[in-house]
Parts: sequence; structure tokens; C-alpha cells
Amino acid sequence: MPTDPRPIGVFDSGIGGLSVLKHLARLLPQETFVYLGDTARVPYGNKSAETVRTYSSQCAAFLLTHDVKMIVVACNTASALALDVLRSMVSVPVIGVIEPAAREAAERTRNGHIGVIGTRATIASDSYARSIERFSNGRKLDVHSRPCPLFVPLVEEGWLDSPATRLVAEEYLRPLIANGIDTLVLGCTHYPLLNTVLTAILPGVELIDCGECAAVDALRVLETGPQEPLHMPLIYLYVTDHTPAFTMLARQFLGMPVDEPVRVNVEHLVLPPDIR
Amino acid sequence: MPTDPRPIGVFDSGIGGLSVLKHLARLLPQETFVYLGDTARVPYGNKSAETVRTYSSQCAAFLLTHDVKMIVVACNTASALALDVLRSMVSVPVIGVIEPAAREAAERTRNGHIGVIGTRATIASDSYARSIERFSNGRKLDVHSRPCPLFVPLVEEGWLDSPATRLVAEEYLRPLIANGIDTLVLGCTHYPLLNTVLTAILPGVELIDCGECAAVDALRVLETGPQEPLHMPLIYLYVTDHTPAFTMLARQFLGMPVDEPVRVNVEHLVLPPDIR
Repeated sequence: MPTDPRPIGVFDSGIGGLSVLKHLARLLPQETFVYLGDTARVPYGNKSAETVRTYSSQCAAFLLTHDVKMIVVACNTASALALDVLRSMVSVPVIGVIEPAAREAAERTRNGHIGVIGTRATIASDSYARSIERFSNGRKLDVHSRPCPLFVPLVEEGWLDSPATRLVAEEYLRPLIANGIDTLVLGCTHYPLLNTVLTAILPGVELIDCGECAAVDALRVLETGPQEPLHMPLIYLYVTDHTPAFTMLARQFLGMPVDEPVRVNVEHLVLPPDIR
Repeated sequence: MPTDPRPIGVFDSGIGGLSVLKHLARLLPQETFVYLGDTARVPYGNKSAETVRTYSSQCAAFLLTHDVKMIVVACNTASALALDVLRSMVSVPVIGVIEPAAREAAERTRNGHIGVIGTRATIASDSYARSIERFSNGRKLDVHSRPCPLFVPLVEEGWLDSPATRLVAEEYLRPLIANGIDTLVLGCTHYPLLNTVLTAILPGVELIDCGECAAVDALRVLETGPQEPLHMPLIYLYVTDHTPAFTMLARQFLGMPVDEPVRVNVEHLVLPPDIR
């Protein structure tokens, strides 16, 4: 059993963060997880930085009511825009999805050309480029970024490998191919579900799954190695709205059966002053 | 000048309602309009009925603080799920976008086969089919419905006439073509911007623009004919979040230049009890 029995908190604007939770649960099957999907206000990717910070603080405040020992921000937009704010207001470790993937990309690239794809807000924040630069160890790395706003609706439509998805992906990735990238950061938690299409269009390019990297980072922060699976990991699922698509898609993202989520209201929560 | 100088209130989950406001402003250029786009919580189309009703009530409450003489619900999802609630709580006339388009479709079809496309929530509500049935005058009308969730992101990406958009539209519309529709209701305020693609795929099919029909309905309720344009219509734009895309897209939807919108907070508004 974990030495600290408190749960690990995970939040996302909606369902995508379950692809991060999937890797956390795989590496840390003895832990208990509390997941909050802010489905009443999804998506964050086209909202202002101020609004994303407010919503993220409310999500973190909800997780803290569950006495979590760590918060994983399983949303690229929130990681890009709200991570610093959360870290300054919360006393437990806060892990985002951007830094771990940026480090992995900087270490893995051979030719120094790294592609980054994500939502419009994530790409506009330039967070991946700045973070990759920080992990470059003085090596010259070229980051080629491209927002791919249609990928999330295509995944949520279930068109994971349709002709339209291929056409959209070819259009989005053409400039990155022209730039000669050998590594591509999937800077959105929905994108790993497009793996088949992306691999077909980008043969030989290493795909970096930000959720997998964040889970490895959680191990490092918890100072533990991968745990032996003793039972199915305990996962408590919360949402801010019961949306028809959630349960249908959740299983696909998480890779295992899920219970019906419990609906909660977080709009009026604020991070408590005693932990600022 | 209008006999009643109070403004007309219009709200939508985001930017799409501007394609409704476009027709209102064209037919009623002497009126003053107050438009609220709930951009902090857009889209409504994948949220639960209860949440859509709460958000719609808050939008209506905001418009009533401007002493509007009429509320146009320029959002298909809100019209499908919240119109009855709003009508029961508000003393001014409330116009939705579904009934007027349903009536128009029932009157225009020659062969009795009507297609309806919209968001998942709008189609799942079955509001168009029920409303078309009400306006059928006993004639047998077959309604063929299809959710098209990718159309909104395609429009917002600006891919109004791209190969991917054509491929997606062909996929979505194939069953409606097989059903032999001669009339298609564009049951989402974003869809009129896809007119070129839709007309190319559906030659000879009448396209019904729900915003245009709602504007005609507003004339009927105000008991006025189309007004002579004396000056540019006065439009006050409000949003619940300053999103990067709004101003860029607003001009396209409205068909005229727009001022920067003013940001407001509506989360804590409730419809005042004295007008319930």
C-alpha cells in the first residue's frame, strides 16, 4: 500500500484528462484517484486566460476538499495558463502535462526538429516552446507548432480513423512534415486516440503522449517506482454536468469500464486562504 | 421610429446567434438590439437540459436588466430545451429559432420529406420533428434528422468551403439524400455559413435558415412590417468571456463591422420573482 494513503486528485475541462488518468492508474494501481471533469464549462481551449484560471482554481479547490496529496492538471490549456497560479495557492505538489512532455521531447529528438500540436489556446500560450527551450541543455532545438482545433470534435464524434479525419490531419500536419520533425508532442489529451491516423501520416516520427509523461512525473514526485497491481485502481469520478457523451467516451479514454460519475457544483468554490 | 423604444434582447451560447441578429437588424434597422453571447460557457449543444435551462435563465435575466421588450433565443439548443421555462418566467414575448423554421419547412416542402440538421442536443430533443408535425395541418410529413457536430468547429476554423468540409458534409448528408428530402432545415445558427458546400451537395433542395425565419417571426410579434433603414442599427454586444475568436468571427456572422464586445458576469443572476 502507498505510505501516504491520501488520494491523488486529477482534473480536466472534460473527458480528455481520462487519457492521463489511464497512465496514472497503470503506473500507480495501488493509489486512490479523485477525477473531476468540468463538463459544464468544457472546453477551456477557446476561453480567455483569466477565465481558465478561475475555473482551474475552482477545480483544484474541489479536489482539496477530498484531501488530495497531489494535483495533476490533466488539461493542456489549464497547464499552460493556470499552473503557476495553482502552484502559488496550493500547498500540495501540482503536476501539469506540459513540462513532462516538453522534457521528453527535448531528450528524444535526434535532429532537433520538434513538432507540437494542441488547441488554439495551448499553442497561442507558447508554453511548449518555452518549456522545450528550458530542457534543451543549450542544444539548438527548433519547435514547430500548429493548432489543430478539429481533432477534439473528430475524436468526440468517434471518427478516430475516418477518411475525413485523415484529410484534416494531412492538412494540419503538412507544414510540420515540411519542417522535417522527427518528434511530435501530442499536446492535447484527446490526441492519443488518433494514434492510428497520426502514425500513418508521420511514419518514423516519435509521438509523445503528454499524459504518459505526466504519469511518469507523478512517480518521480511521489518518490516511488511503478506499483504492483493488487486490485483495480480505486477511481472516484466527478463531473460538473451529466452530459450524454461522458460515460460512452469515458471507457474509450480510460481503457477500462467506469462507474457513472457523480455530479458536483464547483462554481462557488475558492481556494481556501489558509493554504495560499 | 419604433412606437416602443425599448431594445430587443437576443442571446446565444456564443457567436452563432449573430447570424440571427443579422436578419433581425436587416428587417428591423430602426430598433436597438442588446446581444449577449455566453462565450464563457459555450457550447450549450453537449450539455444537459438542466444546465442549458439554468444558463438560459441567467442570459434572459441579464437581458431583462436592459428593459428589453422581447427576447429572441438565438440558439437552437436553448430554444429546444429552455423556451417553455423562459416563457413561463418572463412577461415579455420570447421567440425561439425552432418554431418559425419548422413552420416554414412544413409550408415549403412539396414532396413531404424534410431534413433537419443540428447539434447533438438539438436533434436528440426531437423539437424540430414535433414542431413540424404541429404545423403539418394534417398532411403527412416525414422528418429525417441528423446531428452534425463537426459543422460548428469547421465553421469556427474558417474552413467554410474546404475539401475536408465537403467530405464531412457528404458523410453527414448521405442518408438525407437517400431519403429524398426536398427541404433542409439548418437547425444551428452556424450552418448558414456553409451555404456554398450545402448547396453544391444538395442541388434543388430548399435550405431553411432558422435565423431568417425567427426574424420574420419577430416582425409578426411586434406587429410591424420591415422598417426603412434610417441609420446603422444600434447593437450593444455583451459576452461572458473575451475569447480571441469573437471579434474575428463576429463580422463574418453579422455581415457588418462590430465594436469590441463588453464583458459581463451573469453567473449569479436569477430571473426576478416579480416577473415569474
